[in-house]
Amino acid sequence: MAQKGDLMTVRSDIKVFDATIRDGGLVNNFMFTDEFINALYRANVKAGVDYMEFGYKASKELFDVNKFGKWKFCDENDIRAIVGDNNSDMKISVMADVGRCNYKDDILPKSESVIDMVRVATYVHQMPAAIDMIEDAKAKGYEVTCNIMAISNAKEADIDQALEMVGQSSADGIYIVDSYGSLYPEQIREIADKYIEIGEKYGKYIGMHAHNNQQLAFANTIEAAARGVSLLDCTMMGMGRGAGNCATELLLSFLKNPKYNIFPVLKFIQDHMLQVKETGAVWGYDIPYLLTGRLNQHPSSAIDYIKDNKTDYADFYTDLLDK
Amino acid sequence: MAQKGDLMTVRSDIKVFDATIRDGGLVNNFMFTDEFINALYRANVKAGVDYMEFGYKASKELFDVNKFGKWKFCDENDIRAIVGDNNSDMKISVMADVGRCNYKDDILPKSESVIDMVRVATYVHQMPAAIDMIEDAKAKGYEVTCNIMAISNAKEADIDQALEMVGQSSADGIYIVDSYGSLYPEQIREIADKYIEIGEKYGKYIGMHAHNNQQLAFANTIEAAARGVSLLDCTMMGMGRGAGNCATELLLSFLKNPKYNIFPVLKFIQDHMLQVKETGAVWGYDIPYLLTGRLNQHPSSAIDYIKDNKTDYADFYTDLLDK
Repeated sequence: MAQKGDLMTVRSDIKVFDATIRDGGLVNNFMFTDEFINALYRANVKAGVDYMEFGYKASKELFDVNKFGKWKFCDENDIRAIVGDNNSDMKISVMADVGRCNYKDDILPKSESVIDMVRVATYVHQMPAAIDMIEDAKAKGYEVTCNIMAISNAKEADIDQALEMVGQSSADGIYIVDSYGSLYPEQIREIADKYIEIGEKYGKYIGMHAHNNQQLAFANTIEAAARGVSLLDCTMMGMGRGAGNCATELLLSFLKNPKYNIFPVLKFIQDHMLQVKETGAVWGYDIPYLLTGRLNQHPSSAIDYIKDNKTDYADFYTDLLDK
Repeated sequence: MAQKGDLMTVRSDIKVFDATIRDGGLVNNFMFTDEFINALYRANVKAGVDYMEFGYKASKELFDVNKFGKWKFCDENDIRAIVGDNNSDMKISVMADVGRCNYKDDILPKSESVIDMVRVATYVHQMPAAIDMIEDAKAKGYEVTCNIMAISNAKEADIDQALEMVGQSSADGIYIVDSYGSLYPEQIREIADKYIEIGEKYGKYIGMHAHNNQQLAFANTIEAAARGVSLLDCTMMGMGRGAGNCATELLLSFLKNPKYNIFPVLKFIQDHMLQVKETGAVWGYDIPYLLTGRLNQHPSSAIDYIKDNKTDYADFYTDLLDK
């Protein structure tokens, strides 16, 4: 498959997707102030960001509402308190995890909601449940994506089968998700080509969600874009679980479409993100994340390790090799 | 030009080049302790690193020896105090800047020196002087590379002419140098193909020296390697001017040649690099570096800005746009 466009091309299919609250919420249990969320919404609109994800639609039966901020649940009223009727060109998204949400009840018909998109997050082995959620959200009137997680740990035949299942579903888009931050650009190009082939066959766009364990989140995102991937996830200052994600400021400084404006992003970072960092939220590239990424493991052990302020990296790596 | 090898290939032409003292010295004026340099040398040998650069061969007439650590000058005796006769497989390198060294006197005949390689750093417009230095070092018996800096700011025709000049010189290798950290992987692949073509024509290997302004130092280094670039610069924890370089730990975790061992690198980082950070040396990706990189400018304004602990990124960017 050939590259689509070059460094001077404006590809109108490319859309920027802000996942700061959703992936960043995994760092601070979604404990963002309303002021922060308000400012983020307004910064994204000004910056020309195409989608903003407000968080998860998690089940209140499974998760204690006292232990998490409200964006773990994304009640309709909470979103409306920020965006009103969302009189902007930016679409509002929420994520629904297979097995962790009560989607039939908690996701309202689109006619009653300011939400535009539902992203269904699934592991390969959960695909039948994911398809049920996709069809539910689609029938309710939403734009829907299927985000197949942890593909670096799945068999190719299983991924192929999962892609065929999403292909034949009503989903509008399919996401490449490098959950462990373990994939190199060379692999991302191959995976992107595979996903794009399925996307073209079934009329669906492809998205990219990267993690920065090996300082490759931005590189992998723009390499995927160059192959034809359209929907690009990013977060302010890369805020997200563990090593974090592709940073919005890097992505907007790269894209050539004049609709994007980096100034509101820089303003938001200096006025709000630095404060979040100062209050103790920890994310971003660090050596333990490199090591879990390199070994294609979930970052949880690295997150615990960094929380404990440990720095005996060689011992940590030895432990990982035993897992 | 096709990719050379894949993720399972051991490419015997690939060599790892540690530039921690030389590029890292630009952060702390080369004020490293002997203990640090000793430990770095031993860690590199154990890790299978192929070359270690001890610093610059700067002129003591131009630079005040009281204002810099000894690795700005790399006296023969100082290197020997660390490496003895260097009874290891690792080669010792120094860098000589065009116009900043007294190479005719200060670079000894190879027979009198433990140094193996001289890297001549030059801007495109200084090529005639660089060629003189290359021929001098080569005649003295050294392996020699020509590191053409700041190519992102040079005209293609000038780079082509410079490459022809190095091609016809006695240099053993030619370096791609992304001084401002402004190049994207897509550009690096094109540049690598161009350099490799010249290298194949004249029998010279190609090297890569990246900067991390846009979190692309590692990505650009492995993309260059995939095209056939052989000599890969890295520094411990990415220590280097401004946003720093490709991190040794990232590069060694990527390379498949079993001769490389990441454990001594992890040990060195935990025992020595963290201390250097704690003593106030500042380097690594930060937003001001992204902005100078994006605008293809020298990082000096970003370095000053970060030193002053300023964080009004939007104003900084506005100022840069006026430059």
